Amino acid sequence: MNFFNDLADFSIAEIKELITLARRLEDKPEPRALEGKVLSLLFLSPSLRTLISFQSAMARMGGGTFVISPEMSIHGIESCSGIVMDGVAAEHIREAVPVIASYGDAIGIRAIAEIENLDDDLADRKFRELTSLVENPYINMESAINHPCQSLADWKTMDDLGIPANNGKFVLSWAWHPRPLSFAVPAATVHMAALRGMDVTVLRPEGFELPDVIMDKAHQAAAMSGGSVTQSEDRSSAMRGAQVIYVNSWASTRHYGNRRAEDEIKPELQDWCVDEPWFKNAASDCRFMHCMPIRRGVSVTDHILDGPRSVIIAEARNRMLVQMALLHQMLSKS
Amino acid sequence: MNFFNDLADFSIAEIKELITLARRLEDKPEPRALEGKVLSLLFLSPSLRTLISFQSAMARMGGGTFVISPEMSIHGIESCSGIVMDGVAAEHIREAVPVIASYGDAIGIRAIAEIENLDDDLADRKFRELTSLVENPYINMESAINHPCQSLADWKTMDDLGIPANNGKFVLSWAWHPRPLSFAVPAATVHMAALRGMDVTVLRPEGFELPDVIMDKAHQAAAMSGGSVTQSEDRSSAMRGAQVIYVNSWASTRHYGNRRAEDEIKPELQDWCVDEPWFKNAASDCRFMHCMPIRRGVSVTDHILDGPRSVIIAEARNRMLVQMALLHQMLSKS
Amino acid sequence: MNFFNDLADFSIAEIKELITLARRLEDKPEPRALEGKVLSLLFLSPSLRTLISFQSAMARMGGGTFVISPEMSIHGIESCSGIVMDGVAAEHIREAVPVIASYGDAIGIRAIAEIENLDDDLADRKFRELTSLVENPYINMESAINHPCQSLADWKTMDDLGIPANNGKFVLSWAWHPRPLSFAVPAATVHMAALRGMDVTVLRPEGFELPDVIMDKAHQAAAMSGGSVTQSEDRSSAMRGAQVIYVNSWASTRHYGNRRAEDEIKPELQDWCVDEPWFKNAASDCRFMHCMPIRRGVSVTDHILDGPRSVIIAEARNRMLVQMALLHQMLSKS
Repeated sequence: MNFFNDLADFSIAEIKELITLARRLEDKPEPRALEGKVLSLLFLSPSLRTLISFQSAMARMGGGTFVISPEMSIHGIESCSGIVMDGVAAEHIREAVPVIASYGDAIGIRAIAEIENLDDDLADRKFRELTSLVENPYINMESAINHPCQSLADWKTMDDLGIPANNGKFVLSWAWHPRPLSFAVPAATVHMAALRGMDVTVLRPEGFELPDVIMDKAHQAAAMSGGSVTQSEDRSSAMRGAQVIYVNSWASTRHYGNRRAEDEIKPELQDWCVDEPWFKNAASDCRFMHCMPIRRGVSVTDHILDGPRSVIIAEARNRMLVQMALLHQMLSKS
Repeated sequence: MNFFNDLADFSIAEIKELITLARRLEDKPEPRALEGKVLSLLFLSPSLRTLISFQSAMARMGGGTFVISPEMSIHGIESCSGIVMDGVAAEHIREAVPVIASYGDAIGIRAIAEIENLDDDLADRKFRELTSLVENPYINMESAINHPCQSLADWKTMDDLGIPANNGKFVLSWAWHPRPLSFAVPAATVHMAALRGMDVTVLRPEGFELPDVIMDKAHQAAAMSGGSVTQSEDRSSAMRGAQVIYVNSWASTRHYGNRRAEDEIKPELQDWCVDEPWFKNAASDCRFMHCMPIRRGVSVTDHILDGPRSVIIAEARNRMLVQMALLHQMLSKS
Repeated sequence: MNFFNDLADFSIAEIKELITLARRLEDKPEPRALEGKVLSLLFLSPSLRTLISFQSAMARMGGGTFVISPEMSIHGIESCSGIVMDGVAAEHIREAVPVIASYGDAIGIRAIAEIENLDDDLADRKFRELTSLVENPYINMESAINHPCQSLADWKTMDDLGIPANNGKFVLSWAWHPRPLSFAVPAATVHMAALRGMDVTVLRPEGFELPDVIMDKAHQAAAMSGGSVTQSEDRSSAMRGAQVIYVNSWASTRHYGNRRAEDEIKPELQDWCVDEPWFKNAASDCRFMHCMPIRRGVSVTDHILDGPRSVIIAEARNRMLVQMALLHQMLSKS
């Protein structure tokens, strides 16, 4: 495997193989599988789970990691082209990224959306600029428009819980959040659930429709797998028979990059905080999923998070396990 | 071993076994004993020795670590219950701690005293709240009221130096420090020395008596081991025949949580800076111990620190060695 | 090997042996050569390449590292002697450094020049004060006046590229930079190129002559190896037949420690930005070298950096490889 950027680059069989490998590595650890191998971790945005799940994944197989993160005092990194660097930044990504990559056998890169220009973010321009500087295998640790490690972990989590793949009912719901967030998780999630063969409803208020390019990709995945994808703003009908509600927040598509306009339409959406009444016509064991970090009392109530519906800790732990599988395929000889 | 929270949870025989194991691992390294094992390190308070001694301890046995520390840009972590998280913090300890723990085979946690409410700190409420969220084995890397790794290292240091256990004369002395500090080290130390069977005098100025709950626990340990514990403010009699002076600073018990009141009584205590005259009726080879960090010219003079009495570097190095023993017992199969 | 502080401490044969070992370790990895070994990394100044190249080097041979860096919240570290530490700093280097060193099998230390007092920096007073506190083997990761790991990597880079050692033409050129920088890299570089037997010209504007002590050492190296060293401010003659231009910036010797005076003479030097016309009478395949970080449009044009002359990524990667050789010699039993 030379890169792991998008679940869409893999067949369903290949995805299932990764999940099988993740299980095998949990049951039968291979503490020397990656001895002498090094994973570079480049974070241009903050991280908790992603950082430590990759560090742990490598360590469990005998490999090492090093981290470049935004809080390090590393002279400042410039990314504009053709600039005269006479300010604070003493380093340009055109030098820094190839060097960082060259010290590892593979590199994980996180560069989330700036949420300024919709076309740039949908095209994943910043992330592609970074990976174009890398010759090694690379892993998308969340870009403007994708988060494939999260999706792979979520797929495994649903498999672990016995949630049906074929025509299982999956609701991806927008939730209240004080800040506009990127399309990375909703885009990856709607595609993942569709590719898994599920019947997916994107539940969101007016003005928060997922962009066509994201929906089109999900429709294509559904066409392949026998699933389906629709959008709705009707909570009651969307939740009917739901086996999973996957909660996330994302910026208003209509007002993308215009924080003030978004702030004007948001106050009336504070009831988009998931609580038990949402589940009244869902399947009785309908699960609550979320990629974290999650804001208690804002996106979801304590009642749901502390109750049996929530499987978010299992999702997070699966991040480590599927990443072990990825790294094993990418870096192990055997 | 499922947790290492308090020396009081272990028999004297078990403590001696850990020290023996620490020596064995120094003499005969086992660089693969913990291969594939990962220790999570969660610091809610800053650290130097604790952080790097645990990192080194795991690496020397082939294991790995990852670190969550206060200076990381990890979205801010909320700890209040029932809160609406619409502020800066995007993550709650009820999610963060289980996730962090789940990526390791054991977790070390540091959460020092807030020095606001004496009962909360004596009950170690914050630390217990954190460990209640963890299913893995855990290690106390300093809580409001304990620092068992330090105490185990100090016990070994005294053994290494041939300082008598049974009725060896041990003085735990308060020293000047510009800020009120917690009871973690004095509480752990008075208990450790008593459990080792020593005759312990707590030397401190008026207003800085150790709280009853701390003294009671030390008295119980002394009763088991044949040692003794007293408090005194008379430096000359306390130091008579002393074989060890263990120096620390702690908040005024009387004014706990009231910085202003403490600041009023402290200026006259600036002569609580350990210097050679303190030792005039101590044993000639009386040692100076301290857990560090230590302020030169404030808690102790350069003369003592740079002279033969000081064994603080040995204490610090023993941190790593006893932690190797702990981790070996906790995580190794053999 | 007990320390690696200066190429001048090694014979040419020993240097060649290190480069040979670096190549062997790249071709035939030894992922267990340093199992159970730990390298302490103490940075008193920021780092990118040095930090991660050492972390990766140890990991590739099965060893571990830990890092103390300036951005860590470690109580502040005092370095003055005889001070009363009643301010922010809670820790003195006389305690911190021996402890940090004691947790590793060797220690790398970075403490760059303060550029206040020329004699102090030329004598490497700060770095020597730190290493005097260390009993373990140590590695100079850049001091006020040396950067031997960079020089060893640069030597290997020139070998890799087939740039002639004996009387190859090497130009060390000053370049424009908004801030006064230390003599570490120019001092190490002029010595390294001379020791490699090259004919070295130091090209710099008036007022930026390298100090005599640096030049004298380079002359001695040249005398041993059959190379030569001169200084010049005439770009055209200096570049005649050059096979390498090694670019760096350094403080004005004349105004060392006087930022204002340097700032007054610098504006007219902005044409010291390396561009294609510099190469008009150089060897056609004359290479561009730099230790990074490098400021685009300031010290060198994008044209040079993005063109075939630049070998700076290879230099950076060689940092990791030569450091593997160093660490292997220092820490491996075999």
